[in-house]
Amino acid sequence: MTIREPQQERSRATHQRLLETTIECLAQHGWAGTTVGVVAQRAGVSRGAIQHHFPTREDLITSALEFIFDQRMAEVRAAAADLPEGAERVEAVVIRLVDYFTGVLFKAALQVWTAAAADPALKERVVPLELRFGRTVHTIATELLGADDSDPDTHRLVQATLDMARGLGLADVLTDDSRRRSQIVATWAQHLSTALTRVRAPVEAP
Amino acid sequence: MTIREPQQERSRATHQRLLETTIECLAQHGWAGTTVGVVAQRAGVSRGAIQHHFPTREDLITSALEFIFDQRMAEVRAAAADLPEGAERVEAVVIRLVDYFTGVLFKAALQVWTAAAADPALKERVVPLELRFGRTVHTIATELLGADDSDPDTHRLVQATLDMARGLGLADVLTDDSRRRSQIVATWAQHLSTALTRVRAPVEAP
Repeated sequence: MTIREPQQERSRATHQRLLETTIECLAQHGWAGTTVGVVAQRAGVSRGAIQHHFPTREDLITSALEFIFDQRMAEVRAAAADLPEGAERVEAVVIRLVDYFTGVLFKAALQVWTAAAADPALKERVVPLELRFGRTVHTIATELLGADDSDPDTHRLVQATLDMARGLGLADVLTDDSRRRSQIVATWAQHLSTALTRVRAPVEAP
Repeated sequence: MTIREPQQERSRATHQRLLETTIECLAQHGWAGTTVGVVAQRAGVSRGAIQHHFPTREDLITSALEFIFDQRMAEVRAAAADLPEGAERVEAVVIRLVDYFTGVLFKAALQVWTAAAADPALKERVVPLELRFGRTVHTIATELLGADDSDPDTHRLVQATLDMARGLGLADVLTDDSRRRSQIVATWAQHLSTALTRVRAPVEAP
């Protein structure tokens, strides 16, 4: 076991680098530009080694999206302990959610979803992924906000927040939208915070 | 003049059909699948006739986006008279905005913006378009809502509404998201309405 450990570590590091490179390549060069050959060269891995683990380009790309998504969500959950309590918490959570939708993983996924809109075979593969990603992000957002998902209004406000974050992600694809975005995030967080507080402690009828 | 009219009408109709077909083709077949040849065949226009007016594929596609966008916005403005007054108005406006972001023009633009993210020459052409479209939609949304754009909170709430609508548009690209969407639109419209009313008539300090 001790003798094999370094090799296992090496192959784990190679696996991580390969899938990260695939995501970066998608965000930068798009679906059509992300071939096994391009990824192999950028990651410093042989084409044969990639094809041994991922027989097709679609396998490589969907595996990269799933692997990096799960890793990213585990990080977000692990960092929950650092979130402030009280009034500042909602804004801190909205900022993290928007960070996710403006990051390289979202830009990569956007390229794949968009390609899938014009490619029925790819669409069949990515629709379950999109569904799983959406549900997971909603669950995490609810947890971080400490929101009551069984309340219909709360459920929809969290969904609306994620839709807004997705829209902000899209607005950041061609140009750096960070200045406008930070103002919108602050305004949204303030309204969300007020709305969630109102749900938690409804005003008594006089 | 009278003699030439029918030909002018014919060529206007052909122009309209050609640009509409380009938008439909983008939404259905994506950027790579929208070649002058494919559009020519679907629109029943010769490739030479298209190239006479639009020397390159990029010219055809960006002209189609601009022409159909301007037409769509003129329709939205013209239909403003049909909007209800009072409490129902905000929801009616949000529904129209979200309809725009879930329509075929948005799906076509998404294909072009996404392709531009991986193509610097195309990006240079579409960034000014994206900016103009964004500003125009914001101006129209403000007009329809009867909102005071000089109030910073109102300005940002309208922007956030458009970002949410854009996110809802993206969520509708691979699957029919209309059921979830209608609930989110209703919830958000209610919050937006309350927030805009609060801005218009601020509560007096006791």
